[in-house]
Amino acid sequence: MGEFDLIERYFKRTQSLKSTSGVALGIGDDCALVVPRPNTQMAISSDMLLEGRHFLSTVSPELLGHKALAVNLSDLAACGAKPLGFTLALALPEANADWLQGFSRGLFALADQHQISLVGGDTTRGPLNICITVFGEVPVVDGQSQAHLRSGARVGDDVWVSGTLGGARLALEVFRGNLSVNADIFRQARVRMEQPTPRVALGLALRGIASAAIDVSDGLLGDLSHILKASQVGASIHTALALTLFDAGKAVTGQQALHFVLSGGDDYELAFTAPAAQCDAVQRAGQISETPVTRIGQITAATSLQLLDGEGVVVENTSASFDHFR
Amino acid sequence: MGEFDLIERYFKRTQSLKSTSGVALGIGDDCALVVPRPNTQMAISSDMLLEGRHFLSTVSPELLGHKALAVNLSDLAACGAKPLGFTLALALPEANADWLQGFSRGLFALADQHQISLVGGDTTRGPLNICITVFGEVPVVDGQSQAHLRSGARVGDDVWVSGTLGGARLALEVFRGNLSVNADIFRQARVRMEQPTPRVALGLALRGIASAAIDVSDGLLGDLSHILKASQVGASIHTALALTLFDAGKAVTGQQALHFVLSGGDDYELAFTAPAAQCDAVQRAGQISETPVTRIGQITAATSLQLLDGEGVVVENTSASFDHFR
Repeated sequence: MGEFDLIERYFKRTQSLKSTSGVALGIGDDCALVVPRPNTQMAISSDMLLEGRHFLSTVSPELLGHKALAVNLSDLAACGAKPLGFTLALALPEANADWLQGFSRGLFALADQHQISLVGGDTTRGPLNICITVFGEVPVVDGQSQAHLRSGARVGDDVWVSGTLGGARLALEVFRGNLSVNADIFRQARVRMEQPTPRVALGLALRGIASAAIDVSDGLLGDLSHILKASQVGASIHTALALTLFDAGKAVTGQQALHFVLSGGDDYELAFTAPAAQCDAVQRAGQISETPVTRIGQITAATSLQLLDGEGVVVENTSASFDHFR
Repeated sequence: MGEFDLIERYFKRTQSLKSTSGVALGIGDDCALVVPRPNTQMAISSDMLLEGRHFLSTVSPELLGHKALAVNLSDLAACGAKPLGFTLALALPEANADWLQGFSRGLFALADQHQISLVGGDTTRGPLNICITVFGEVPVVDGQSQAHLRSGARVGDDVWVSGTLGGARLALEVFRGNLSVNADIFRQARVRMEQPTPRVALGLALRGIASAAIDVSDGLLGDLSHILKASQVGASIHTALALTLFDAGKAVTGQQALHFVLSGGDDYELAFTAPAAQCDAVQRAGQISETPVTRIGQITAATSLQLLDGEGVVVENTSASFDHFR
């Protein structure tokens, strides 16, 4: 199968373009054309996924199609942007029809959920590499962008996290043979690792409420530290509250569970801050978007991230993070 | 060096962001924010470059930085879009400071020429892979997009090509050891292969004049056939006129020179069509943008691409193309 046949067959879906707001021209020209609405900004983000680093070679292509788009939508969610469309650049060792069918099925199932279109891209032969660029829109109200930035956290704000954390890491440790858990727990954790849910609805519901946000891809403490650095503040995190984010029953407990929650990565939840006075509004945003939200700490005037035990005593000053080049 | 240090050190240039129109927020958040101007569309394109396929492993990182952005800007040029910015996703075997310094120098030198910013992206460890997504703006006049599409060619239109063709292929054949030419010719051809000039200025000057356009990345006949297919027309190309596009003196002649021109690829010139009545306007667009333009044929009602000799006799019906998966 040739490159252009491959694009036609698995990635061109002209019928879906007409129903997509904002996309004037999709796949098949040198560029896609997107029509921004008045009083909006365009939010843009790129992520690259590699075999062995971002996913296991054994993952099904359908799950991979889902995850490749999900991690990108997660960036839009963090900004509070409404997804509009995406481009896909794909390097493949060979044009394998089964693989492409599965991958495109997983990709488009998630795209359809968010009513967005694949508008362009590139395919080439090479070591498996998936590079997606998503774009979405953020309203501008009275000259002010409604995007959640990393730099907006203020002393006294609450620190919140959506959903649960640590499940993806638990699944990874089982795959690596470092841990053994029962089948139900593993199945649930594996969904967290292989089929993350981008928190787009929560990101939209938090517009005008959250002061800063980031998605948890590399681990809570590391990602939160990006907010702290950009906002020039510190934070205190209550380990007992953080532990409630762990949802793997009694399979893993204590320090190991806490470690998975704080440093696990790959869960694609949102970590965000909001003024204390917005506590009820955050809870309502969680309800509207059907996304659990948990308050785990506060923004402080310190320059570090502190972990507090049940008595409020500092157990650790930390700035741990996952880094692809360390 | 860690991933975030690496981004800070080689890719974050806050000072340049302020001077860039349309970019509200650059590197360092989950998304970049771009502010579209009223009555414009956003043109978006992604290209992925791999070692051994799109560039030789021996190419200097500075030239590679140039080329990676150039091939993307070339897509905007084809559409007649004004470049605004780009994202960069980069997989690297190791965080090599010399490589990164050279690559970012070449990349930003071309970005500065076009007054555009790197607004975001991703870095990871893996087999060398460079994925750039560019975005630019196209005006909408009286509800009509001014973008050049592949589907706009009409029977009777002239077929034009910018600059010269075949040089990049000549350099490649020398590198492969299949051809030997003198040092001056090789130096010139090598610039075509390693430092292509995206025809952005010509693309802008052709707004409202060209009926269809594409950039010549895979070879003139193959790329032109995309216009023909999208426009449901054919074309006649005069081989004698096409041969004048070859600019390597007497190093290569006859059928081999013609083959390099028609199928060479990697020159990143524009192939475009325009109504015959716009002939003078096309010439002026070439002068304004300081880009040579050559008329090499006509759009026909046939369904194929015909090559005509000096007497206007058909020498070949062809639809040759470069295809990454064939």
